[in-house]
Amino acid sequence: MRLDSAGLQVLSPAECADLLASTPIGRVVFTDHALPAVQPVNFVLDGRNVVMRTTVGSKLAAAARNAVVAFETDEFDPVARTGWSVTAIGYARAVTDPAEAERLARLPLAPWASDGTAGDDAQFIVMPIRELSGRRIGARP
Amino acid sequence: MRLDSAGLQVLSPAECADLLASTPIGRVVFTDHALPAVQPVNFVLDGRNVVMRTTVGSKLAAAARNAVVAFETDEFDPVARTGWSVTAIGYARAVTDPAEAERLARLPLAPWASDGTAGDDAQFIVMPIRELSGRRIGARP
Repeated sequence: MRLDSAGLQVLSPAECADLLASTPIGRVVFTDHALPAVQPVNFVLDGRNVVMRTTVGSKLAAAARNAVVAFETDEFDPVARTGWSVTAIGYARAVTDPAEAERLARLPLAPWASDGTAGDDAQFIVMPIRELSGRRIGARP
Repeated sequence: MRLDSAGLQVLSPAECADLLASTPIGRVVFTDHALPAVQPVNFVLDGRNVVMRTTVGSKLAAAARNAVVAFETDEFDPVARTGWSVTAIGYARAVTDPAEAERLARLPLAPWASDGTAGDDAQFIVMPIRELSGRRIGARP
């Protein structure tokens, strides 16, 4: 078992991929007007791609368009003091090809926001995973 | 009820502060070698300060030392499709004054990692909150 500088167990790439696939919510980390920014989003894995769905004109759509972003998922049990986190890094791009958008629209990725605008203004963001790393803390659940 | 560009409910500063105080885990968002980075950490609020505890020499200690960081907390219910997130922004500093470190050590902030090194190598990071914002999605739980 490999530990990092903070005493946390370093997860293997296979464990990271399994954990990433196990959760429907992640957090996109990007830069917004030169400040660190973070936004939760629901997502699915499409092969080695993180696929997110946002709306045209949203802050996320603007920020994650052709930029290196980090994508973090985690799960913690505050009582048992156990948990894990996995972070993927990659170059995010906004999907502009109608055929690709149509294919992605068939993925099991429904928008959570129900403001009546879902559908035509969907904007998919695709992030191919370039780096994947993860840590576990406490006893293995 | 104010909505943002993605159709999410914008939370008031008071709601943000209450939610931030309700959860023991947050995520520090910073820059690591020019790449976006994110790390979960347990924390407590000390007035308007986010106080984190890490270890001397950890990546977090190096990165959050005298840097503008974002600190995110959230809670989601994937079944009900409801949740909230709150993000604080501020200038993080490593605590070097022994008297301040001694005071912070009395806060209810135990390290989760149990690698036997807890104690002498504790490194506190303090982030006074400069900006606080939050969103809620779906029905109010």
